[in-house]
Amino acid sequence: MSRAGRRGPRVRNLAAEQPAPRQPRLIREPLRVVSDDELENIHRASLRVLAEIGIDFLLPEARRRLADVGATVTGDSARVRFDPELIETLISTAPSEFTLHGGAPARDLHIGGDWITFGCVASAPNIAERATGRRAGDRKGFQDLTKLAHVLNPVHCFPGGYPVEPIDVHPSIRHLEAAWDGLTLSDKPNHVYSLGGQRNRDVIEMVRIARGVSDVELDDQPSLMSVINASSPLRYDLPMLEGIIEMAARNQVLIITPFTLAGAMAPITIPGAIVQQNAEALAGIAFVQVVNPGSPVMYGGFTSNVDMRSGSPAFGTPEYAKAALLGGQLARRYGLPYRSSGVSTSNAVDAQAGYETMWALMGAVLGGANMILHAAGWMEGGLHASPEKMVVDADLLNMVSTFLQPIDASVEALDLAVEAIVEVGPAGHFFATQHTQDRYMSEFYSPLVSDWRNWETWTEAGQPDAWERAERIAQMFIAGHVEPPMPEHRRARLRDFVDRRIAEGGVPTDY
Amino acid sequence: MSRAGRRGPRVRNLAAEQPAPRQPRLIREPLRVVSDDELENIHRASLRVLAEIGIDFLLPEARRRLADVGATVTGDSARVRFDPELIETLISTAPSEFTLHGGAPARDLHIGGDWITFGCVASAPNIAERATGRRAGDRKGFQDLTKLAHVLNPVHCFPGGYPVEPIDVHPSIRHLEAAWDGLTLSDKPNHVYSLGGQRNRDVIEMVRIARGVSDVELDDQPSLMSVINASSPLRYDLPMLEGIIEMAARNQVLIITPFTLAGAMAPITIPGAIVQQNAEALAGIAFVQVVNPGSPVMYGGFTSNVDMRSGSPAFGTPEYAKAALLGGQLARRYGLPYRSSGVSTSNAVDAQAGYETMWALMGAVLGGANMILHAAGWMEGGLHASPEKMVVDADLLNMVSTFLQPIDASVEALDLAVEAIVEVGPAGHFFATQHTQDRYMSEFYSPLVSDWRNWETWTEAGQPDAWERAERIAQMFIAGHVEPPMPEHRRARLRDFVDRRIAEGGVPTDY
Repeated sequence: MSRAGRRGPRVRNLAAEQPAPRQPRLIREPLRVVSDDELENIHRASLRVLAEIGIDFLLPEARRRLADVGATVTGDSARVRFDPELIETLISTAPSEFTLHGGAPARDLHIGGDWITFGCVASAPNIAERATGRRAGDRKGFQDLTKLAHVLNPVHCFPGGYPVEPIDVHPSIRHLEAAWDGLTLSDKPNHVYSLGGQRNRDVIEMVRIARGVSDVELDDQPSLMSVINASSPLRYDLPMLEGIIEMAARNQVLIITPFTLAGAMAPITIPGAIVQQNAEALAGIAFVQVVNPGSPVMYGGFTSNVDMRSGSPAFGTPEYAKAALLGGQLARRYGLPYRSSGVSTSNAVDAQAGYETMWALMGAVLGGANMILHAAGWMEGGLHASPEKMVVDADLLNMVSTFLQPIDASVEALDLAVEAIVEVGPAGHFFATQHTQDRYMSEFYSPLVSDWRNWETWTEAGQPDAWERAERIAQMFIAGHVEPPMPEHRRARLRDFVDRRIAEGGVPTDY
Repeated sequence: MSRAGRRGPRVRNLAAEQPAPRQPRLIREPLRVVSDDELENIHRASLRVLAEIGIDFLLPEARRRLADVGATVTGDSARVRFDPELIETLISTAPSEFTLHGGAPARDLHIGGDWITFGCVASAPNIAERATGRRAGDRKGFQDLTKLAHVLNPVHCFPGGYPVEPIDVHPSIRHLEAAWDGLTLSDKPNHVYSLGGQRNRDVIEMVRIARGVSDVELDDQPSLMSVINASSPLRYDLPMLEGIIEMAARNQVLIITPFTLAGAMAPITIPGAIVQQNAEALAGIAFVQVVNPGSPVMYGGFTSNVDMRSGSPAFGTPEYAKAALLGGQLARRYGLPYRSSGVSTSNAVDAQAGYETMWALMGAVLGGANMILHAAGWMEGGLHASPEKMVVDADLLNMVSTFLQPIDASVEALDLAVEAIVEVGPAGHFFATQHTQDRYMSEFYSPLVSDWRNWETWTEAGQPDAWERAERIAQMFIAGHVEPPMPEHRRARLRDFVDRRIAEGGVPTDY
């Protein structure tokens, strides 16, 4: 691609400009913010919370199952208490690594170990576009964001995991149409909201049909994720517990994520909030393992702080970064894959969006997160999704992935460089050397959005800022989206299922 | 401060909103990108470059001094070759830590160890302001940026180190008026450009007068810095070598910084470019120690890559981050304080400026840099300085400093948090607890520029982006600048010196 392509009227071949899809790895020791001794203090404080205070499990079936394995349940109270030994025994069956299957083998993801997975924005109630401003989520926005998340190589999972809520689709059938869009517009691994067991069952069946596998095969191949939020402090609600039961029974992936804002739903100090996060996460993970020992589950962290002046949550803060690193240390202590997030509180795709997101992303990656959700397109503390931000974030994800690739500092590689230095000598120039010519097309990461043109050229082009450049790129990507191949009979079966369930009325919405 | 202060007409007491001035420390192991074995490969390749190719030292006096200590100089050639043992012996006298003195004891800086120092933008030829666009540097811009760098607590050093070049002051006297502004508008440690020995001598004398110390005291107290750039590849020019001689003779701080763009002035591979950077840095540091063994000197790195499509330098890239971390590993290997930079290639204070700067800053901080120059206000690959960006960067520096503060995860601290969890219980709220009320004014970093207001409030305020918000804050800070105290007789002596040197014609400008 020539640089002129950016300025001329020619449509850029954006797909060709992207690095190939791949999962980065953190090959070095993750960052730590506390010592091993301090980590044990946090661990023990969490076990004390579980033993002395306990967690409310609002679903009677959940309490019954937990009592069966030795947890303390008293009468009709929702409260469940766990002995320290019981918690440690229960979580010990959770796998430390597993494969998450996509709609094609090339989409399969390694979860755990030193592998990193990036997920796109999810659960935003609004979408904002640079040209038209913010609006409530709708199916058009949902589809555009799903297409974009499919086309952007560094986004590994859940396009269609409600990058924005399509509120113009009735809640009783929203999960069906959303899963249809997600499974036909993309073959990357998908996501279902745990909003009552029937929705989970519907989408599990749709994923099975879309992948063309049997029930037995699906039960052997985790292919769908669901995020389970504790209702902090110290409570799991009915829909979430039903989601755990449905998903774990089918060996599908659960991401247990307390949402513990320090100073609001958790103690104001970050270590204190993490004590609570850890207690809630361990209780949720333990319940997953009670339902189906060995079922894939991730340790999720989503602790940040509130702005104490306005009471609003803030993300991409120093406190958020510390909490994310602490979560990683704890997950590794338990041998569990760790889920973190890429976040920003900014309302605009401006400098704040850039630095908050990069800050959260670096903290998550260097802190050993295995899955970083909301890593593309998340804005306004999660209250809106942005296609332009998704494109900016794709650049950030590619930058970080490039950074994580190992350096070749072997004697052989350095000898070649020394030969080039000898060839050029003092006061010379390296551009024309063979060493440079052999490598100049591939040696450096070439970004989509970052603009490295000089001031004069950039001014001739109208001084577009990153937001404006990302807008054009997002539009080109969405326009260039192509549905991934799916055999016609499979597609027809999938649509038949959706149509049948819609005809049946979907899911009652008065729970 | 009430939140309303941001919206209302009242002038904010910005000084009161800033965290107090302090130097952050990296209390944990710095990040590494290569193994110790690979680091030794780079070290040995650099020594091979110094032994087999050598470095051109253009100043005959420098060659003579180097020959005196055993370096190989042949006839009238500028080339100087170093045996590996000689280099290691020469650099061994450089101190690993020292104090850099400011105009007041509270401004003194710890350089080396795990201490971190942030310096403001330097050497930009242009200034750009949001309202008026870009213009060539002038004294008004120079003074505004100097005032801002003085007022912003996280900026530790060299306001007045030419945040922008004041080209409306004649080059023969520019260093005199610039040092006057720098020493009267701020008492933070300052900087002199090494552009021929006389300029160094003038500014050293001005710093001595401004600090009110004797020659002997100054020689004992490093109080001024100068950055020495190699003329890469493999060459030191006359003015830089004269700067080393003047500064080292007075025990002042030299920051030896090769500017090795991979693919242009250095091999295209990052490890190859670092081999060259390291050879150049070691040769410069060795010469400093030849002039005055034990004199303070820093290992500087400024390796990045060029955009191979346009030939322009790019900063804030994955390659830059890798190079910065490699530089830190090498500096620690030699027991030398390490200088890195906070950089961005962006033309606008937009998302790109935000993520490139945060990326470079995190790489530098986590990579163990002791001094991070250009950390506030640097834009456009160094071609312009921006007051608004300086304010945005101050937020970033405070965020990073806050992040680096240790977490209290002692049993005692966690017990207090557990008590708060017991008090609130499941489904409660922490805001009203004593644990929260005791801490809510101070527990979290409260940023200057980051806007955490909700969408509606932000919209009522006119949807200002980070650039616009920073503009207002920059203007308030500049307007609120107060000159640091200096005894009247000392101030008069300083002005007398400047006036006398101006009357003498300053420095000839035809070299």
